[in-house]
Amino acid sequence: MLLHIIYLIAITAEAVTGSLSAGKQRMDLFGVTTIACVTALGGGTVRDVILGHYPLGWVKHPEYLYYTICAALVTTFIARWLHYLKTIFLILDSLGLVAFTLIGCTIAREINCPTIIVLVAGMLTGVSGGVLRDVLCNQVPLVFQKELYASVSLCTGIAYLALLHFQINDSTATLICLCSGFLLRLLAIKYSWQIPTFSYDDNAH
Amino acid sequence: MLLHIIYLIAITAEAVTGSLSAGKQRMDLFGVTTIACVTALGGGTVRDVILGHYPLGWVKHPEYLYYTICAALVTTFIARWLHYLKTIFLILDSLGLVAFTLIGCTIAREINCPTIIVLVAGMLTGVSGGVLRDVLCNQVPLVFQKELYASVSLCTGIAYLALLHFQINDSTATLICLCSGFLLRLLAIKYSWQIPTFSYDDNAH
Amino acid sequence: MLLHIIYLIAITAEAVTGSLSAGKQRMDLFGVTTIACVTALGGGTVRDVILGHYPLGWVKHPEYLYYTICAALVTTFIARWLHYLKTIFLILDSLGLVAFTLIGCTIAREINCPTIIVLVAGMLTGVSGGVLRDVLCNQVPLVFQKELYASVSLCTGIAYLALLHFQINDSTATLICLCSGFLLRLLAIKYSWQIPTFSYDDNAH
Repeated sequence: MLLHIIYLIAITAEAVTGSLSAGKQRMDLFGVTTIACVTALGGGTVRDVILGHYPLGWVKHPEYLYYTICAALVTTFIARWLHYLKTIFLILDSLGLVAFTLIGCTIAREINCPTIIVLVAGMLTGVSGGVLRDVLCNQVPLVFQKELYASVSLCTGIAYLALLHFQINDSTATLICLCSGFLLRLLAIKYSWQIPTFSYDDNAH
Repeated sequence: MLLHIIYLIAITAEAVTGSLSAGKQRMDLFGVTTIACVTALGGGTVRDVILGHYPLGWVKHPEYLYYTICAALVTTFIARWLHYLKTIFLILDSLGLVAFTLIGCTIAREINCPTIIVLVAGMLTGVSGGVLRDVLCNQVPLVFQKELYASVSLCTGIAYLALLHFQINDSTATLICLCSGFLLRLLAIKYSWQIPTFSYDDNAH
Repeated sequence: MLLHIIYLIAITAEAVTGSLSAGKQRMDLFGVTTIACVTALGGGTVRDVILGHYPLGWVKHPEYLYYTICAALVTTFIARWLHYLKTIFLILDSLGLVAFTLIGCTIAREINCPTIIVLVAGMLTGVSGGVLRDVLCNQVPLVFQKELYASVSLCTGIAYLALLHFQINDSTATLICLCSGFLLRLLAIKYSWQIPTFSYDDNAH
């Protein structure tokens, strides 16, 4: 239940980031809503297509589509004031990342995937919406270059599986991971934590 | 039957647009045929993968692949004369957009999708081939930036569902939507109709 | 068995190419391992999603994921010496292309696809990992522009099906195609064989 509410907040937050990205490319309203839907719902779609888990979430619950479309259209009106809300927005996005991850892990566990696939499913759900957004906006995906993001998703997934392994019940584990993953992400933003970068320049290659 | 013939014309027209895009990037013949196939058959593929509707159309009817490959190769020979045919070509592409949309809606209805998913399936079929073409040619998808295109697809889908709702029979509804969608697209091209663009430049974001 | 060993060598080689591409974009370690996995396992994933062949190879055998992740991380340490190994590396990549192709054809034959779909499945397995790598690194896919690569995959597939058609047993056919496809690719690299390029510059289009 809690996870579901946070999921709705999360897809809204992701829809906003998608709209703003589309706005930077001066897309029309169709482009804006499409990028918003891809950003908000793309992570779950990639996960479900890879796991063969049909019907997709938003096909079964089309109301998710309505939320994201509304969020996208509202964003185009309020964009000029959004930088005042930047902190709230980063907080929602961080909550979303963690919530998406936990939902992805839960679904992969339900269909009995091996442990590493559960972690991958969590990360796919958490980050691939943003990757698709950046590909469609013709940019190198941000998530591959900037501060701790996918790593937060991975840590959240590992913590969740560890807690379940030690017989903690599912709701408690979810709540603990939600809070600690969220905190980790906020700290990563505040202190600009990064994982090491690999730079390779051999032009001869 | 009519829809099937128009479908064949449509995939040929889309294959031609794909080849020309690939030619602008100086791709080799393999690249040209690949981009042509992705443009012509990618829309239906995306729709079927998202709906879990297997086997895919071109896997079941490989003759569609032959058509697009032939169209792609022929295009490389006749490209220098194609600008004389530009009007014919825009007409075929417009017919294709509307035909793809109606086929997408029909397939989604057959597997009992909710109304909004039927519309989304129509739009995915109509426009995502062109989106994939632009992503593979490393460009921001045209369909997100230029004149009325996806909106024509959406209007066609809505009109189709409305007519069916009022008990019009399927063939009549298809024919009416084909003609009116086609007309709408031609008018949009002629008068450069656009839907509003959203521009967002906050570099601080 | 032979094919399986070559498959493991191939995914390692592809993981290395993926890591180096990611390094050129100065990605972080998460980006590097993701691009490596997409390059190594993306071809099989695209094939299986298109054929509706679930569960995906690496979901069923997560050890493939471990190999590619290790290969990616090791690459970041030894990248500075890799240009000394360039020849070995090109050889492994060529072997991989041919092995991927034969595996793709075998899987499509097992689920009774039509002949042309078997060839397409082989090519998808052989080349689409590299295409995804280039799209995520924001480049026009190399395979669409440079020397004989996809064509080697196509020829290998055709030779394989021809041999099976003439009642050659499967292992013999695999071995012959592996060697001759590999040789063809090495010759193509050594003599810079290319298939014709299509260039189209009509700005009016």
